[in-house]
Formats: sequence, C-alpha cells, structure tokens
Amino acid sequence: MRFASDNTSGAAPEVMAAIQRANAGYERSYGADAAMERVTALVREIFEAPEAEVRLVATGTAANALAIATHCPPWGAVFCHTHAHVAEDECGAPEFYSGAKLVLVPGAQGRITPETFATALATTGEGGVHGVQRGMLSLTNVTEAGTVYTPAEIAALTAMAKAKGIPCHLDGARFANALVATGATPAEMTWKAGIDVLSLGGTKNGCLGVEGVVLFNPEKAWELELRRKRGGHLFSKHRFLSAQMEAYLADGLWLRLAARANAMGQRLADGLRDRQAHVPESPANMLFPEWAAGTHARLEAAGAVYYRFPAPEGRERARLVASWSTTEADVDSFLDAF
Amino acid sequence: MRFASDNTSGAAPEVMAAIQRANAGYERSYGADAAMERVTALVREIFEAPEAEVRLVATGTAANALAIATHCPPWGAVFCHTHAHVAEDECGAPEFYSGAKLVLVPGAQGRITPETFATALATTGEGGVHGVQRGMLSLTNVTEAGTVYTPAEIAALTAMAKAKGIPCHLDGARFANALVATGATPAEMTWKAGIDVLSLGGTKNGCLGVEGVVLFNPEKAWELELRRKRGGHLFSKHRFLSAQMEAYLADGLWLRLAARANAMGQRLADGLRDRQAHVPESPANMLFPEWAAGTHARLEAAGAVYYRFPAPEGRERARLVASWSTTEADVDSFLDAF
Amino acid sequence: MRFASDNTSGAAPEVMAAIQRANAGYERSYGADAAMERVTALVREIFEAPEAEVRLVATGTAANALAIATHCPPWGAVFCHTHAHVAEDECGAPEFYSGAKLVLVPGAQGRITPETFATALATTGEGGVHGVQRGMLSLTNVTEAGTVYTPAEIAALTAMAKAKGIPCHLDGARFANALVATGATPAEMTWKAGIDVLSLGGTKNGCLGVEGVVLFNPEKAWELELRRKRGGHLFSKHRFLSAQMEAYLADGLWLRLAARANAMGQRLADGLRDRQAHVPESPANMLFPEWAAGTHARLEAAGAVYYRFPAPEGRERARLVASWSTTEADVDSFLDAF
Amino acid sequence: MRFASDNTSGAAPEVMAAIQRANAGYERSYGADAAMERVTALVREIFEAPEAEVRLVATGTAANALAIATHCPPWGAVFCHTHAHVAEDECGAPEFYSGAKLVLVPGAQGRITPETFATALATTGEGGVHGVQRGMLSLTNVTEAGTVYTPAEIAALTAMAKAKGIPCHLDGARFANALVATGATPAEMTWKAGIDVLSLGGTKNGCLGVEGVVLFNPEKAWELELRRKRGGHLFSKHRFLSAQMEAYLADGLWLRLAARANAMGQRLADGLRDRQAHVPESPANMLFPEWAAGTHARLEAAGAVYYRFPAPEGRERARLVASWSTTEADVDSFLDAF
Repeated sequence: MRFASDNTSGAAPEVMAAIQRANAGYERSYGADAAMERVTALVREIFEAPEAEVRLVATGTAANALAIATHCPPWGAVFCHTHAHVAEDECGAPEFYSGAKLVLVPGAQGRITPETFATALATTGEGGVHGVQRGMLSLTNVTEAGTVYTPAEIAALTAMAKAKGIPCHLDGARFANALVATGATPAEMTWKAGIDVLSLGGTKNGCLGVEGVVLFNPEKAWELELRRKRGGHLFSKHRFLSAQMEAYLADGLWLRLAARANAMGQRLADGLRDRQAHVPESPANMLFPEWAAGTHARLEAAGAVYYRFPAPEGRERARLVASWSTTEADVDSFLDAF
Repeated sequence: MRFASDNTSGAAPEVMAAIQRANAGYERSYGADAAMERVTALVREIFEAPEAEVRLVATGTAANALAIATHCPPWGAVFCHTHAHVAEDECGAPEFYSGAKLVLVPGAQGRITPETFATALATTGEGGVHGVQRGMLSLTNVTEAGTVYTPAEIAALTAMAKAKGIPCHLDGARFANALVATGATPAEMTWKAGIDVLSLGGTKNGCLGVEGVVLFNPEKAWELELRRKRGGHLFSKHRFLSAQMEAYLADGLWLRLAARANAMGQRLADGLRDRQAHVPESPANMLFPEWAAGTHARLEAAGAVYYRFPAPEGRERARLVASWSTTEADVDSFLDAF
Repeated sequence: MRFASDNTSGAAPEVMAAIQRANAGYERSYGADAAMERVTALVREIFEAPEAEVRLVATGTAANALAIATHCPPWGAVFCHTHAHVAEDECGAPEFYSGAKLVLVPGAQGRITPETFATALATTGEGGVHGVQRGMLSLTNVTEAGTVYTPAEIAALTAMAKAKGIPCHLDGARFANALVATGATPAEMTWKAGIDVLSLGGTKNGCLGVEGVVLFNPEKAWELELRRKRGGHLFSKHRFLSAQMEAYLADGLWLRLAARANAMGQRLADGLRDRQAHVPESPANMLFPEWAAGTHARLEAAGAVYYRFPAPEGRERARLVASWSTTEADVDSFLDAF
Repeated sequence: MRFASDNTSGAAPEVMAAIQRANAGYERSYGADAAMERVTALVREIFEAPEAEVRLVATGTAANALAIATHCPPWGAVFCHTHAHVAEDECGAPEFYSGAKLVLVPGAQGRITPETFATALATTGEGGVHGVQRGMLSLTNVTEAGTVYTPAEIAALTAMAKAKGIPCHLDGARFANALVATGATPAEMTWKAGIDVLSLGGTKNGCLGVEGVVLFNPEKAWELELRRKRGGHLFSKHRFLSAQMEAYLADGLWLRLAARANAMGQRLADGLRDRQAHVPESPANMLFPEWAAGTHARLEAAGAVYYRFPAPEGRERARLVASWSTTEADVDSFLDAF
C-alpha cells in the first residue's frame, strides 16, 4: 500500500542483475564504455532514428535542465505547463542551467492546449529587446496530473512552436507509461510528433537512477556533453549508467514494467469507481481523487502511504502512484480499506 | 596491467552487496531514507565531529562544485593549485556553480606552499572593488601529482587563509589514500587542520558512484541541499547512494581498500626503482615516472594501459594509478614487461 | 503631443547645468568623487535615514536587478506583479543577476493585493527542497498600470513578507510621481512601510540617465558595490552620475518635476473625461484609456505619439505618459484632436 | 600634475556641446534615436566596413563583457594576457556575462607573444570534455603595460586563433591612442588584422561615458542587443550615448584627443629620460617608470597624483597616464619636481 511515488520502489531484478554483470573487470570511464555503444544502438532502433544521439545522467532534473539548456538561449522563454515538473519541482534547475525564463501556460488536467499555447506565444517576445524571446516548448508526458497527450495532441502543439522557429522538448520521466497508455510507438510520440529532445526516464520505472537525454538533432551532442560535464553529471564509472539503461531498453523490459504499473493504476481506478468514488481521468499510473478528511484518515490508519494536497471545501486531493513493483494485493488491500 | 585510473575499476564486493540489500522493498526518497541517517552517524563518529553534516552526490565534480559554491561568493577568488582537478578537469563546473574565479597557485609536485600562497593572497583582492575578492582556499589531497599534504602542511595553509577570513575546502577524491599514506586520522586531516568542507571520495576507491560533501560548519547544510537540488544532484532513489557510503565507511572498508591501492602503488614504485627507474615522490597510489618512447612502446605492447603526457627531451610522462582491485600479479607483470 | 514615454523627454535644465559644472577639472573616479558624498547626505536627509547607503547606476533595469540580486538568493522566489517591469520589460535581467525565479502575483490595476499575495506565499516554498524558496517581495510604485500604492497598502504587503522573513524591494522608476500622487514622504513610502531597498528613479523624471539603489540595510552596501562592478555598472567618470542625482534631489527639483508631470497627466485625464471618455484610475502621469480604432487614427493623424495595445472588442488601449517637459499646449492640442 | 588615470579627466568641450544639443525636444528611446543611425554610418566609414554593426554602452567593462559573451560559449577559454583588464580589473564581469573561463597568457611588457599563445593553445582544450574548450582570443591595445601591438603583431596572433577556429576580440579602451602610436588605420588594427569584435573606447579619451561594441560579424548584432538589455546596459535616453559617440568620431576629434594625450605622454617620457630616468617602452599615453621611495615622496609633495605599485628592491613603480586634457605646463611642472 505504498503509493507515494514510483520513486519509492526499488529497481527491477533485471536491472540489478545488469549492474552486477557490469561490475566485472576494468572498463573505460566517462562514457567510453562498450555498453554505452549498445545503448546508443538500442535507442536508435527503438526510436527508428538512426542518427539520434543519447547521453545518460542519473536524475530527471539533470536530464530536463540539460535538455533545455542545450536548446534554449539565456534570453529565451521556455513555455511549459503551470504545474510542470520543470516549473514546480526542480528548484530552478532549468533556469540555472539555461539562464532562460519559464513562461507558465495553463490548461486543465495538466495539459497545455492549442488555445492556451496560442495566447502564450502571442504575448511573449513581441516587445522587441525588452522581453525574453520565444525560446522553446517543453511538454510533459505522462503529465503531472496523471493524464497523457496523444501523439496528435503533441504534434498540434509542436507545429505551433515550429511555426515560430522554436524547438520542442518532452519531459518523459514517465515516458514508458505514456507509451503504454496511448499505444503509441516511441517514434510516434517523439520526433514524428515534432519533438527535438526527449528526457527518457528510467529511474521511476525500475532503474536505480538513470535517465537518457535523446537528441533527434544529433548536432547538439557535443554541446550536451560539455554541459553535462560542466554540470557535474558525467559519471566516471559510467558503465553503471549504461548497464541500467541497456537492461531497461533491451527486450522490452521498460514497456513491461510500465504496463504493470499502468495496469495496477487502472485496477485501483476501476476499484475506486466501483465503490462510487470519483476518479479524474487517469490513463496511466497516477490517480488524483479528492476525498473528505475522514476517508484519508481511514486509509492511512490501514497503512496506506501517499501524498495529500489541500482541495476546495475542506477536502483533500490524494496522489496515488502505482509502480512496476505494485502488486494486486497492494491494490486490493487499499480498496478494502477504502 | 590496467593503470589508467582508479575509476576504471569496478566496485568492491561489499559495496555491491550493500546495493543489493538496499533494493528490498519501499524506501523514502530524496535523502529521507533510513540508511542516510546511519551515514550521518558514521561520518560524525569517524570524523570525531558530532555536529558535522554530510550530503551525498554521485560525482566528484558535483561534490567539489557544490562545496565551493556553498562557501564562496560569486565575486570571490578560489585559490587552488595550478593543476588542481577543479581547475583542469571539471570543465568549469566550480565556476558554473559558484560564479567565482579560480586563482591558480603554483607549487612543485602538485602542492601549494606557504610561499606561493602568500604571493597569491597578497596580489588578490587588494584592488578594492575592481578585482575579485579573496574567497576560499581549495586544496587537494592526494594531489593531482600523486603527492600528499600532511596535516601540518594543510594547517599551515589554512591558517593563512583564516587570517584573511576565508574558508577552506579539501578535495578528497582520494581522501582515504591520503589518510593511509600519512597515517593521519580523518579529523586530523580535516577540521583539526582548519578544513571547513570536505569532498569525501568514494567512487575511485571501490564504490559505483558516490561522494560526500562533509560540512564541519553545519549551518551551511540547508544551502547545500538547495544547491544540490538546483544542480540536479538530488537522487530520488537516494537509498542507493546511502547504501554505498554506508558500506564504504562501515568497519573500515574504505581504509582497507585504500591501503590495498597504496600498497600496490608502492610495490610498483619499489619495483621500478629496483630496476633503476626514477620515480618521483609518490606515497599513495599514483606514480608519474618519465620514460623514453621505446619504454612506453614496450609496456603497451605487453598489454599495459595508462595515460601518457608529453615531457621534455622527447620523453613522455606516464600516469600509473593503482586501485583497490589491482593485484600483485598486475604489478609484477608490469615490472616484468618493464 | 509626445506621450509615448517619459523617457522620450530630455533632461531638465538644472540637471544639464549640473553636468556642465561637474566637468570642470580633474575628479576621482569610480564613485570616490566629492559629489557622491553630497548625494549620500541628501538621500539620508530626504529619507530621514541617517544610516542609509546609496549607489548610482545609469539604468532602471540595472538598479532593479542589482537590488534584487543583493537581497535574494539564487534559489529564491521574487514575488512581483504579473505585469511588473522586472517581469515583462527587462529581458530577464533580474534572473540573470540574481539567479532567482520571478513568481507572478496577479491583481487588478497593476497592484498586488493582500489576497493575491497570500495565495502566492502559501503556494511557494512549501514543498521543501524541491521548489524555490520564498525569497523577496518586489513592488512597483507608480505601478505599470499607472496606479499607485499608498504607504498603508505597501505596509500591509511588506508585513506579510516580513512575517515570512523575506526582504522587500520597491521599484521606484517613477518614485517621485508616486510621492506627489499620494502626498507621502519618502520615508513613509519606503522604510517606514517596510521597504528594505529602493530603486530611486531619476532618468524618466528629468535626468539624462541615473538611478539610485537606496539600501535601508546598509550592511549590504559592499556586496552591492561588488555586484555593480561585476555587472559593468560602475562608472569611471562617476562624477557625471553624482552630478545628476545631486541636482535632481537638491532643493526639491525632483518633486517639482514630478508635480508638473502629474499635473499634466491630470489635465489630460480631466479633459478626456470632460469629453465623455472613460479613463481608468490614473492618479499620476500615466493614463490607459481604451478607444476604437477610429479615435486612434484621428489622434495620430493630428500628430499624437503614444503606444497602443490590443484590447477586447476590437478596441485598443492607449498608453499616454506625461513628463516633466509636457506643456499645457501639448495636452490641449491632444484634447482638441480628440 | 594629475596623472592617476585618463578617467580622472572630464569630457572634451565638443562632446559636452553635443550632449547639450542632443537634449533638445523629444527623441525615440532605447537606441532608435536618429543620432545612432549617424553613429553607425560613421563607424562603417571610419572602419571601411560597410556591414559592421555597433552598439553603445556606458562602461568599458560592459563593452568587454558583452563582446566576450556574444562570441564565447560558457565552456570556452578566453585567452588573455595575465594582466589584461578583463582579468584583473573587472571583478569577474567577463565570466559573469559569458560563463567562460579566462586562461592567462604571459608575455613581457603586457603583450602576448606567438610563443606564449602557442603554449596556451596547446595546453587548453586538449583533454576532451574534461576541460574548457578553446573559445576566444582577447587582446588589449594599448596594453595594460602602456605598450602597443602593431597590426602585424595582432595578425600573427589572430591567425593562430583562427587556425583553431576561435574568434578574436580587441579591448580598445585606449584604441585611439593605439592608432596614433602606431599610425595604423582603424581597419588595419581590427578586421584586416583578424579582429572580429572591438571594444571601442570613448570614456577615457574625452567622453563622459560611452563605449562602442563594434561587430565585424554583423550576424551577432541581435544577440548582442539582447545581452545588452539583459545586462541592464540599454539606455532609455540613448540619445545621450549616441551624441557622445557621434561627436567623438566626427571630424577626427577622437584622433586629435588621443594625439594630444600621446604627445603629452611622450613629452613626459622624453623629459624623464633627459633627466637620466629609465622609462620602459611607452609609445602612447601611459608610462611605468620605477623609482626609489624618495623620488615618489618628492613628487607627491610637489602635488603630483598617480598610482604606485610595489617593485623589487624597495622601489616602487609609478603609473603615469596623460590624457586629452593634460597640458604642457602639467608635464613641465612634473619634470621640474622630478
């Protein structure tokens, strides 16, 4: 009944085994390890992008901040959702790395819409040198509200960005969960939909700590490497990052882990709905139902662990996150307690 | 015969086992894990510093950059050796994090001396607002030249810094090796010698990737945490950093690993000297002998791996680094090839 | 009929004369000029603040950015109005100098209210290390909407900030106009109302280019000086900044110039209202009436110059700014054309 | 007998008159003034560079920092002389604006030589991602030691930079003095010698406070404008910068002023040499003789004002700077006192 976050789970057995195997003998440091070559090959194959480049870091904040800094100048505006992780949960890391300004774009259920983005585009960078310039679009999928963008929805937004000449980033801390929820392929969700750079999450979905920055414009790779080093994010024993990502992507492990997390999320949502609870749209592994204080007390008394946020009318919104390690028993115990 | 760097070694079995154990079940994220409390207790005990605070990151560059940024203002000068790691091998990370300027202080064999430091102090920050101000002293032990500072040598330099009111950092990427080489205790090498903040290396000496920033002035801890997050260095699955550091520090493992690395370094140095080679002062696990090209070719043909740098008179300087995993057979094969 | 901005006016004759006088002979550079001592004395007298410190720069953006950087850490949130000059018209300078993040606080007519500020305070810095921390409050008076805060309104907001332990900045690019419009004294509008640092505008109100940063916490003065130099804002021939500010503040010139600008603003507002035009609250020298396109065309055909912004229902909002050099004839010609 | 710095002089009468004329009536702000168009035309004509762009700021530090930031990435090394103004006298402004690292290149008499530059080039950026990359060359003419580079000497250094693909900056705080001293044309000293961007000094040579950043690669102009605004260096009443620079460049005033300063410098040097004093090479308006303490005391007792720096053997080095306003009587009084 641990639903606080997918990052309170451990690592999947396959990933742990890969770490163990990677430990044998000597290996070149700083990304020159042989496994990294295999990671690159895997990314190119999975994303149907034979020119793509990928670099590994250990945290999602690093991946996002580096992806943004590599694509947006210091005087640029990064358009992102009001409640995007880059805006609310990274203590200013994107600004620290890039110098850019985040321009918050509203939208129900965690999603920017063509309408809200149009307004933001129209009111930014129109004042000449006095204001920041339109710099970049950053989307998040799965969103912070637990909803997803379809590839078509992403493409509609990136087309607006491209019409203004600015690149597009996708924060994919839960990218695998978004793929599973939508049925899209990695390519459909990214470069085919106009994404230039992806933060490819591994940590939340069964790794110890690894994220990829995938560049569909490979000419940015050297700049990304320099920024990674300068940020202190280049691992000397890089083999341990490569091993995680290789095991994660090989043989579809990442999608199986996400499918399990999403299935548990759906089981929880279905169970709650069966019990007459209102559960907002939540196609992946995160649910945000609102309940009265008594309900929360009852659940916590039964041992459930999750985050609570203030909501209108004295209610509180729960954030319930299923992970690759959530079991049916976990879900069912929660439903029983509910 | 892999002597390129101690970071081409893997992790020690005890550390790997700890990672495995840490993977069981759910655990609080972002540094609130139970193991981190044990790490703090261990650090306080080992350093005889009951108020000390420690925070973990995954790379030495991050540890150094955060340590410096937390103690030096943007208009400060960081005094460091001309060839310090922070100056030459971190792609400007210390400056990126702190905004400060590195002022290079010369000194033979990788060591700043009271004389060279006095000159640097006298010529920095004396021009009023026009120049950067004296901001911080950063020493490295083991130095980049493979030599060590004794606690007394450190204390002599920090006293000069303190007389000018500036704090002192020790880059201890190879701190355990320095302790073993000098016989000093952790406290003698740090706060008893005037050090305010230590980068406590784990990666090179048998971990996968973990470094501690140890604050002997604990009031800086919250700033350090914010800077760590803002730099993207706060791990969500922090338990895996804690587990490494706990295993590393518990039961003296870190000192045993360093003792093995240093012993292999000495075996190599002794063997070379027995064979009439000149090996400069190298009390720890790094040697920098200079040889003619033919010698290098012979060694590499025999399978030795190490870095080479240009030296006067057509010779080349080798950098030979022994690690916790170097064997006597490795050393002896090298000596035979030599 | 030039109402585009008060910065399209020249300098007042008294200021020009002071510049001329200041040119005689040699003078110490970089702020050590004798006139700067007189400026400090004047500021202390006028603000009834015998400990206050003041430093001069040439632009309002520099004054604001330096004031903020000197009081807010890189991980801090600067609370400011959605349409504050620091947010919309300085191309990210406050963020560049401070590293901080601007958190936009809404409010009708350009004013933050206790309600909107309470919401912003409650939703910022509550997430621990993951989000930026409450760092600073920055108010603007005269606001960007042409309205003013009374000292009591400022005090209500600064009290909320102080309760959270954060300092308060006042962007006074049109500070003199605000004093004239409210009848407040300089002290009442600043430190007596909880302001810690003021950007004291001179340029828009009859100078060539000079702004003061007034510190009511003088212990920040040295940091401010270093940041000014580091930003490239320390004038070598500083005497020309001092001369402007001395002439501006001496004998009440600044208030007479602002009184003239405000009077012309009121004459314009009254005249428009007499002609049945709706003119929103505008107690100082800036008016923002909305008119149909035909009205704008008629006025511009008659030679009027001012900015126009899109408004609902096909109308356009005018920004009309009177300055110290606006004449009654200018106003009356405009009214005739209207 | 005021020889402390050329920035202790006032402004030339022609420049003051231009400021007065510029004050008439209304004028467009933020660089859109008509005079700025004339400044651009003058720069293009004088530099024989019909595509060149120029932007104005008020301080030399701003000009240098913006020039560097516009041409060097954050991970770049800026090669400059050990005692360059950007290295010693700008409190880290170039690093603040650019993020880059200054790599100090030695050389006698303030000049980088092909030999010292070759060493710096060879030892920077060769370590892959671990170190900063070769980013830019920044020369100073007149140098901080009072010597000059000839166009051929500049061309030799820029050719080495260009061979490595990096751009070249000239800090011309005393550019006019260098032209007069060498007889070179503006074009010969800049783009014909491989310079990409020039800090064109006005302040020290008879202006109140104006410097130009001249871009021989005009495609950088928009970035420069954004960085200028973001740095708080865009003047609202920009007409007062334009007026200074226009008067300065028109009709050769700048060269006449520099010729007067240099002539006074030569008169001083010749007079000292006639009196058996050793005066190092000083072809422009700055002299650095070394004298015993008694000589300094005698001169100061007679009313001479200048800077003194420690020198070997108990002597002190004087810095004597002549300016456009130095008179023959000033020089002769000094010589008499000597």
